[in-house]
Amino acid sequence: MSLPFTPLVQSLPASTPFVGPETLERQRGEQFRARIGANESAFGISPNATRAITDALNTPGVSWYADPENYDLRCALAEKHGVHIDEICVDAGIDSLLGLTVRLFVEPGTAVVTSAGAYPTFNYHVAGFGGELNTVNYRDNKEDPDALLAATKSHNAKLCYLANPDNPMGTSHPDHVVQAMIDGLPDHCTLCLDEAYIDFTDAPLAPAIDTTNSQVIRFRTFSKAYGMAGMRVGYAIAHKDIITAFNKVRNHFAMNRLSQLAALASVKDDAFLTTVRKQVKEGRQRIEQMADSLQLSWLPSATNFVAVDLETTERAQQLLKLLQHKNVFMRMPGVAPLNRYIRVGVGTVDEQAYLEEVLGELLHGL
Amino acid sequence: MSLPFTPLVQSLPASTPFVGPETLERQRGEQFRARIGANESAFGISPNATRAITDALNTPGVSWYADPENYDLRCALAEKHGVHIDEICVDAGIDSLLGLTVRLFVEPGTAVVTSAGAYPTFNYHVAGFGGELNTVNYRDNKEDPDALLAATKSHNAKLCYLANPDNPMGTSHPDHVVQAMIDGLPDHCTLCLDEAYIDFTDAPLAPAIDTTNSQVIRFRTFSKAYGMAGMRVGYAIAHKDIITAFNKVRNHFAMNRLSQLAALASVKDDAFLTTVRKQVKEGRQRIEQMADSLQLSWLPSATNFVAVDLETTERAQQLLKLLQHKNVFMRMPGVAPLNRYIRVGVGTVDEQAYLEEVLGELLHGL
Repeated sequence: MSLPFTPLVQSLPASTPFVGPETLERQRGEQFRARIGANESAFGISPNATRAITDALNTPGVSWYADPENYDLRCALAEKHGVHIDEICVDAGIDSLLGLTVRLFVEPGTAVVTSAGAYPTFNYHVAGFGGELNTVNYRDNKEDPDALLAATKSHNAKLCYLANPDNPMGTSHPDHVVQAMIDGLPDHCTLCLDEAYIDFTDAPLAPAIDTTNSQVIRFRTFSKAYGMAGMRVGYAIAHKDIITAFNKVRNHFAMNRLSQLAALASVKDDAFLTTVRKQVKEGRQRIEQMADSLQLSWLPSATNFVAVDLETTERAQQLLKLLQHKNVFMRMPGVAPLNRYIRVGVGTVDEQAYLEEVLGELLHGL
Repeated sequence: MSLPFTPLVQSLPASTPFVGPETLERQRGEQFRARIGANESAFGISPNATRAITDALNTPGVSWYADPENYDLRCALAEKHGVHIDEICVDAGIDSLLGLTVRLFVEPGTAVVTSAGAYPTFNYHVAGFGGELNTVNYRDNKEDPDALLAATKSHNAKLCYLANPDNPMGTSHPDHVVQAMIDGLPDHCTLCLDEAYIDFTDAPLAPAIDTTNSQVIRFRTFSKAYGMAGMRVGYAIAHKDIITAFNKVRNHFAMNRLSQLAALASVKDDAFLTTVRKQVKEGRQRIEQMADSLQLSWLPSATNFVAVDLETTERAQQLLKLLQHKNVFMRMPGVAPLNRYIRVGVGTVDEQAYLEEVLGELLHGL
């Protein structure tokens, strides 16, 4: 039986960007003891956010829809970033915003550029709207702005994706390199600058936000440093004409009201962010020391994970399997030549201790 | 400056399906005292849901993404409805599922049928994907299955929308009428059967769920009777090939983890549902008595609101304005001939008492 879906939908594979750890737990009939594979935070949410949610649970507002304009949150974010509220679109996570962005620019056949091995959910949306995805290679385990720019030109691409800091490698470019890429964008191309991991470092990685430039959309999130992955709050900062376009297609009542309140309560909790940043830095150092002690090299990271080199894809894949048998959830890059690395998330102190306990022995067995 | 959006996006108006009560509050500089315009529940959420959220806030899981397969929740819903879990798609509210449904079936120019004055968010999505919306009129303040069927045939429509019970009128059709409509669907057409309000009555309004019929998608939600509007949990029940198609395009990590847990905790709380149903029934009766005492007629409702007849559009619009000045948030149907009614939501006892306090005087002033 063939159902009357659009030709595009009929042509799509039944693929998903990621298999969730819960799926693996169900398959194996065991819970993970270290969940360090999805770049989730090991350091919880701001106590202000917890209080905001707990308070809201005890009011009639618990049953209300969220403000579809996300007004209060946008005001707080506008103040934080020094932009106008009409230059911010809040939505249920960067994943959703990437989908909307693709929908704004991509028709069947529209050329798009990204790096081979970069965030698969962007690719999922490009495929979902019939776009033609073109990839360039990482260079020295970093996304390659020059190659990306060249590809946007040669393919006449309407969208280009860059994550800085990068996922899955954790590497990053300084602000001036990203700015040079922005300055070099051809007229027809809009840059999706995914800065989900920007809060994990004080280093100057983010070029100044310039919303007069309608060729750049900055993506930020409460999922990582703010620890709110499961609460689904992301936002885009862009020229107001782009925000207006988001408003033409987004689900206006998509936001969770408790999450909206929690995000608002988190924005100004600098103390929490400082603590998380410190804990993540210490966590990275512990991963680095662990790798050093096992004679494994690793990449300097500006994120809450560290890419550790297993030298071959086979070894990396084997190790991940063995780790899974020890109830450690970890992921690795899916594309060569990045897939000789494993991506070790900063976990809790207990998770890291457990990883150290099992990793040495497993490596011996490879 | 013209940005390189798709021609479809460029053609879309900057419209939104609804203005939120918070927007009105900001415009007026005052809070509403009775928020009875968005069909939100006045009776909170299940204590099991509150406990699930509170518990989750105190675990490391507070920072985790939700299970992208919504497995546990789908299992519970499958059991409740007597279907297979592969016949259920959970997503962040019916609004989002309607958007996905339109995306599955509609290309620019695809014909779609609905009733003039029915749920505007469906129309918003049809416009958003370039569909051609065709409407038929309500008949005796009910959606008209015969007219809808005739229109799906004459327009060769791929989608047809029916809400039962209906929003904004609160009216409903018995199960056999809906079943007859299902049986009469032309081969090329899929019925979007929106049953958001189905939990508010014991009357037999829902035809037996038959997932062997790939021409029907049933939409259910935790937003109404379960009081979780702001938590964004809805689901579709349909033939597994339709669920597979949803999985090709949905945001797999769209669900809020706290909401997922709260919904799971609510599903089996029949006692809560029974209490809410009783409270809503009493609330409707109080609205009906109020209308009777003011010599206003009203429509029997199977929902958590009652449509009250103001006899002319002008009177209805004027009254809503006056109510707003008294800090009562209420909405009315937007399309003739439905727009002589106002839609009075079942509020808390205090909200209803306040409405009664102000309504008589305002009517005198009309």
